[in-house]
Amino acid sequence: MLLLRRCHCLTRFGPLSALRHQTSPGVAVRLWSSSSSGGEDQGSYQRAHTPSWRHALAGLLAGTGAVLAYGLHQHKAEQADNVQTVEKTSPLPIFTQEEVTSHRSLENGVWVTYKGGVYDITEFVAMHPGGDKILLAAGGALEPFWALYAVHNQEHVLEILSEYKVGELSSEDVKKQQSVVSSDPYSSDPERHPGLRVNSLKPFNAEPPPELLSDTYITPSAIFFKRNHLPVPQVDPASYQLHVEGLPGGELTLSLEELKTRFPKHTITATLQCAGNRRSEMNKVKQVKGLNWGIAAISNATWSGARLRDVLLAAGYGPDVAQWACHVQFEGLDKDVTGTTYGASIPLNKAVSEEGDVLLAYEMNGENLPADHGFPVRVVVPGIVGARNVKWLGKIIVSAEESSSHWQQNDYKGFSPGTDWDTVDFKSAPAIQELPIQSAITTPADGAVVDRSAEEVMVKGYAWSGGGREVVRVDVSLDGGKTWQVAQLKTSDKEQEPRPSPLPGRAWAWKLWEVTAPLPPEAQELEIVCKAVDNSYNMQPDTVAPIWNLRGVLSNAWHRVKVKIREDESEE
Amino acid sequence: MLLLRRCHCLTRFGPLSALRHQTSPGVAVRLWSSSSSGGEDQGSYQRAHTPSWRHALAGLLAGTGAVLAYGLHQHKAEQADNVQTVEKTSPLPIFTQEEVTSHRSLENGVWVTYKGGVYDITEFVAMHPGGDKILLAAGGALEPFWALYAVHNQEHVLEILSEYKVGELSSEDVKKQQSVVSSDPYSSDPERHPGLRVNSLKPFNAEPPPELLSDTYITPSAIFFKRNHLPVPQVDPASYQLHVEGLPGGELTLSLEELKTRFPKHTITATLQCAGNRRSEMNKVKQVKGLNWGIAAISNATWSGARLRDVLLAAGYGPDVAQWACHVQFEGLDKDVTGTTYGASIPLNKAVSEEGDVLLAYEMNGENLPADHGFPVRVVVPGIVGARNVKWLGKIIVSAEESSSHWQQNDYKGFSPGTDWDTVDFKSAPAIQELPIQSAITTPADGAVVDRSAEEVMVKGYAWSGGGREVVRVDVSLDGGKTWQVAQLKTSDKEQEPRPSPLPGRAWAWKLWEVTAPLPPEAQELEIVCKAVDNSYNMQPDTVAPIWNLRGVLSNAWHRVKVKIREDESEE
Repeated sequence: MLLLRRCHCLTRFGPLSALRHQTSPGVAVRLWSSSSSGGEDQGSYQRAHTPSWRHALAGLLAGTGAVLAYGLHQHKAEQADNVQTVEKTSPLPIFTQEEVTSHRSLENGVWVTYKGGVYDITEFVAMHPGGDKILLAAGGALEPFWALYAVHNQEHVLEILSEYKVGELSSEDVKKQQSVVSSDPYSSDPERHPGLRVNSLKPFNAEPPPELLSDTYITPSAIFFKRNHLPVPQVDPASYQLHVEGLPGGELTLSLEELKTRFPKHTITATLQCAGNRRSEMNKVKQVKGLNWGIAAISNATWSGARLRDVLLAAGYGPDVAQWACHVQFEGLDKDVTGTTYGASIPLNKAVSEEGDVLLAYEMNGENLPADHGFPVRVVVPGIVGARNVKWLGKIIVSAEESSSHWQQNDYKGFSPGTDWDTVDFKSAPAIQELPIQSAITTPADGAVVDRSAEEVMVKGYAWSGGGREVVRVDVSLDGGKTWQVAQLKTSDKEQEPRPSPLPGRAWAWKLWEVTAPLPPEAQELEIVCKAVDNSYNMQPDTVAPIWNLRGVLSNAWHRVKVKIREDESEE
Repeated sequence: MLLLRRCHCLTRFGPLSALRHQTSPGVAVRLWSSSSSGGEDQGSYQRAHTPSWRHALAGLLAGTGAVLAYGLHQHKAEQADNVQTVEKTSPLPIFTQEEVTSHRSLENGVWVTYKGGVYDITEFVAMHPGGDKILLAAGGALEPFWALYAVHNQEHVLEILSEYKVGELSSEDVKKQQSVVSSDPYSSDPERHPGLRVNSLKPFNAEPPPELLSDTYITPSAIFFKRNHLPVPQVDPASYQLHVEGLPGGELTLSLEELKTRFPKHTITATLQCAGNRRSEMNKVKQVKGLNWGIAAISNATWSGARLRDVLLAAGYGPDVAQWACHVQFEGLDKDVTGTTYGASIPLNKAVSEEGDVLLAYEMNGENLPADHGFPVRVVVPGIVGARNVKWLGKIIVSAEESSSHWQQNDYKGFSPGTDWDTVDFKSAPAIQELPIQSAITTPADGAVVDRSAEEVMVKGYAWSGGGREVVRVDVSLDGGKTWQVAQLKTSDKEQEPRPSPLPGRAWAWKLWEVTAPLPPEAQELEIVCKAVDNSYNMQPDTVAPIWNLRGVLSNAWHRVKVKIREDESEE
């Protein structure tokens, strides 16, 4: 069954604290238009459809992970019941760019321009689905930001904006703005495999069809899940530089050639998984914020590169450093219009451990890293959530503190199912590093039909655990979890020898598994369930609701698919 | 609620493969006597009570963990329906000890003597609840073995034995045997705290009452759960020797004094948990084999001693060793009558890691180790199942292989709920090392009553995870898991400062937690549930049945207690 690949938003309705700016009488809005921007980029704002609240907005800044806060947008003008198209009917004051620029704080008001219009969005800031990132545009033009986050290119976003219009930009300043061409920062993104199921085009986020995923032990790079937070940067390998900071020896700068020749090449096979893998199952319990991943935001590849440990030692790392340093931060070369780069950090002991196997990888599956996977150099932190495996690596910083990036501090954390956006305190939870035990059924698909004449059903899937913990067993049930059988685990493709057992604590790669079971004679439908066990004997929780969390991460309950059994026509 | 502290056996009924030895016509048995040996030692054989099988025996060699196999004992003589007391009515042949001794194998027959009688137990070997350990007595007297495993001191065990009687031992040999006094090997066990809840007296296994357990962050040694597999050995600290073998430098022998003075004293606070903690909850799903532990086979203490790493380095450990060695084995000084010592092993990388914190501990909570906890030296392997924390340590062996002990190879492993004693292959599962995430409610007790006038209920408990993974959250529900609130975590007692955060991967100690919640106005009963999350975001499974396993280990589903709310009399 093809899952709906749409980004959902969490709709919230609560008391509105701030009175919004009064719109000009002639500016009406149509908040409840049924039109949709459509297109392939479905990481889109969604509408709130609770009739008891006539004017509500809740949304999602898709694909950025940058969702900090959001709010309820309530329109004071009761006449908005009559849905009308935006139209300008009254003359508005003319402002200069200088006047606009003087409004760049909540204290002085937050003004922005868009296509020659001037908007006072002060009251909207608290309601912005993308959080206070909106302040980056304060006093200036929205266009470069909206070019970066394509989610804004929708009619109803313009409708919301129109409510805040307070004037026009002087024609002279409009001309100046137009001379700065805001090009599409995604225009140089690479071509992608057409088989991928796209969650968001800009930034690009996609997963392979599940049935392809379990076809090969090593996932081909072309269909390895893609999880980008920003446009893919263009990096010239000849001029590429990796900076290593924070160590006693001062900054170390390495060219790609130096990284390849000064340090031994180390190869590991490691599975990467997005924290949001299987988020769609949480969305079925209650909507969460984030890309609506199916079960395939996980893939397995062979990575080669220099060991981070070796590079840190070359840069001056020694036991003294461990007295004050606790983290190793990574900065990507992918950045937004303000120059903010993607960033994350991992614990120092993982980074410097001989057994940590953290790589500065320049090869994936025996070839140069593809553009989508971090060319020319990315971090591979085996056993750790994908978000810390920073791509297009530009800088490494050894530090006492975690990365201060949004993605480390205010995203990629787990919370109690009782925690909502009113009560969440991001400081109260640790940044996700090691991931918990996981498994899923790749075939049959949910809703598939099996012929009775087949007599048996083959069930296939993957299983993996974080922290180097080896999957030691997968249990499969055909009756919703009442009875269980043990699946056969595989560490290679059909014609290949099984791989040697991983070293203790260094089981970085997944196991594929399969079981062939006779069709139960009486059953008309099967509820197939899988659950995996790692060598710490951690097991998957039974159900989704008790692990639900507002960001929809860490979705690792038993995976369930329903399959119908079709009786043979010959027997009728 | 006081849980039934009895050892249960798994009753199995299946086809009987071997025809048993024909009993003498005059020897009848009463298999279904309702009499019980009683006494405090309740680690006892249990009866099978399924009426469709008249003659069945299934049992448990309690407290040894040495249950390898068991069988169905079927009496061929149909007249046994008439239950009668054992009585000797016919003269039997006289055998010499020499003749008995010639029968010590399955090929030549397995004969034993008991109180002057001679028994051919060849056919019973496969059915022995304690597995092939019974062969240790082949050709000789049962008395010394039964003295060790007090579980045999029951009337119905004698009844079973009587069926196999084939003769009398010559009076001369009887006299010789009697000159060898078989003393009670448990007679020198230490005194224990009367508050402990005893699961088995010989060997001694007991847990504290749950409400005491959560009273102190550091469990007082006297009520720290006791888990002995054998009698407590008497070790003279002055002549104590620790042998370290398997390293290039040859054997290293250390006195207690040398252990204390040659190596730095290292102190950690670490929680130990028995693999069978909370087994009683699995028994409610379906009977398993093993001591029927409640929720308190877990405790937290401060341990001091030499680091195993330091001792191994002193004994010649170096990087070369890691080329061929994978395990470090431990042998206790506690032994059975054959001289077999308790044994276990841990992975080499845990043993030698600077961050592994494995201790050769000689102090517990600031004092010499108590006798029950391994005086004078035990291994403390933080983050690892109790069974590998070998007490009364006699020998350390660095080796390519795991310990060959029964407890490493054929016990303390987890299996699928679909695996039974017919299908179990102990080689198919890894020995338990790191334990999964765990938590339980210590107060209120199941079945407790709360007065409505109290208006709120305070819930307390513990939470811990293996492998040094820190508990980061405990969720508590009063409505069986529908809604959740987050408990407050505690790392110290009331008047003390909270302890500093553990180093990454080295969270060896539990967290206590509590939450005070208002009584729901309409509820007459609460189903209080807790579940914990560690910093790998592993969570406890929802229910017991899907993690049930034939040995009843790794019982870590959500813990649930039911509490009644009593309406105030004044309101009536």
